[in-house]
Amino acid sequence: MSQPPKYLTGDSPAIQEFLDKFDVFLIDCDGKRTVFVTNNSTKSRQEYRKKFTSLGIPSDVEDIFGSAYSSAVYVSRILDLPEGKRKVFVIGEAGIEAELRAEGVDFIGGTDPALRRDISPEDFAGIADGSLLDPEVGVVLAGLDFHINYLKLSLGYQYLRRGAVFLATNTDSTLPMSHTFFPGAGSISIPLVNMSQQQPVALGKPSQAMMDAVEGKFQLDRERTCMIGDRLDTDIKFGREGRLGGTLAVLTGVHKKEDWEREGAAAVPAYYVDSLASLNLDA
Amino acid sequence: MSQPPKYLTGDSPAIQEFLDKFDVFLIDCDGKRTVFVTNNSTKSRQEYRKKFTSLGIPSDVEDIFGSAYSSAVYVSRILDLPEGKRKVFVIGEAGIEAELRAEGVDFIGGTDPALRRDISPEDFAGIADGSLLDPEVGVVLAGLDFHINYLKLSLGYQYLRRGAVFLATNTDSTLPMSHTFFPGAGSISIPLVNMSQQQPVALGKPSQAMMDAVEGKFQLDRERTCMIGDRLDTDIKFGREGRLGGTLAVLTGVHKKEDWEREGAAAVPAYYVDSLASLNLDA
Repeated sequence: MSQPPKYLTGDSPAIQEFLDKFDVFLIDCDGKRTVFVTNNSTKSRQEYRKKFTSLGIPSDVEDIFGSAYSSAVYVSRILDLPEGKRKVFVIGEAGIEAELRAEGVDFIGGTDPALRRDISPEDFAGIADGSLLDPEVGVVLAGLDFHINYLKLSLGYQYLRRGAVFLATNTDSTLPMSHTFFPGAGSISIPLVNMSQQQPVALGKPSQAMMDAVEGKFQLDRERTCMIGDRLDTDIKFGREGRLGGTLAVLTGVHKKEDWEREGAAAVPAYYVDSLASLNLDA
Repeated sequence: MSQPPKYLTGDSPAIQEFLDKFDVFLIDCDGKRTVFVTNNSTKSRQEYRKKFTSLGIPSDVEDIFGSAYSSAVYVSRILDLPEGKRKVFVIGEAGIEAELRAEGVDFIGGTDPALRRDISPEDFAGIADGSLLDPEVGVVLAGLDFHINYLKLSLGYQYLRRGAVFLATNTDSTLPMSHTFFPGAGSISIPLVNMSQQQPVALGKPSQAMMDAVEGKFQLDRERTCMIGDRLDTDIKFGREGRLGGTLAVLTGVHKKEDWEREGAAAVPAYYVDSLASLNLDA
């Protein structure tokens, strides 16, 4: 680690210096302003705005950047899919569907109740001979799916075998919840990685595809932008690799000081605070 | 590759030489005799015997060695679990349950219909606070599970977090079926690997734990034993690493000649045939 991170306490001049230095906070969805960047693909931007409003945090849909949204934008505006191969097979929840729909992208799978069941002998046969597959699918997009099952994995793999582009909303291995961890989006897509021996293009943090999309949309000055978040391997790495002016680790989450002090740390933040309450962003 | 494999045609003297050389065929479950070694954990040895009988192949339960059986033997006879931590949480099908039961090992999970459902908010809370976990579980054993879901993965991961031993019946990434591929046992357990950053002890081919178990049971002479199978990364590797006298690749399956000729091949067989019909094992 080249430069040890600076510890910011409540009323230090360092905090004022930190606040003076940056215009934009790319913040990990539990802060105050300006752009909220989240890897959670289960909610759409509309749903996030509602959640923020209910928490008393003013926000605008346009200030929210989720991995479902960046995935939809990537499919609709960046991937150059051939005619007749523009449909997306979704492994994931409603947030992905809402964002694909908003971008005018056709999809199947997702929350379709027809796929929420055991695989049958007819499925094995129909998947193998292709009669159960949609020939227009050219993309497999995998995100967090609380309804993952053998049938969906079998379908996703067959589409990959037939040449579909492999995308993941994000590759977080775990989902922090109820003070412990549950399977994250990366643990939903990893069977497909294991079977196909292909890595997906990941659209969430720390993927720089997301940084490019954020920069393109908000015309931000990277030098005066700071990434605030609680995970070294996503948030802080995202800011470091995006060459942002600053990165601030908030120690209320998964990672602690020991995590960046150890050999082979995913990324070292420039600054850290015990909690976001230490920063008075209204000041 | 040190020595190119020999091609055996139907009536060549090489076939006679091959047959003369070996006493025991560790064969990949679609051959004639003697020990059938399979990674498929969904069936018990009893069920395999029935299947063989229905195919007109005489066999004895004692000549069948499946990964469910070797896993059960590993838990009951090799793992030295502390009192009060001897229960197994199973991710898998009935074959594993039958073999654990036969070895007198307590287990939960498996085909229990109570786990074949969506995860609920109460599950998240109960898994997090431990009230939904069985404190006697000391092992997580993962095999092929056609009913894999988010709830089972969440439970399996929590047991691992609490120190359970991580076992896998086998780690084949794919399951050959209907002339294509479906998710294999290794693609069921890999979310747990991804989340826990632990590798399971794998009991199927090519794990030498299985070879040791087979040798212990049959008192075979490795020098005069040949592994016959169609997968380089499981069957042939299993025989090579077990220093068996011979390895014979049968080209009716997943792998072809190109696969061992390429750089970084999983294993190179000593012999190969187009199909098992080329060998007249009755001769």
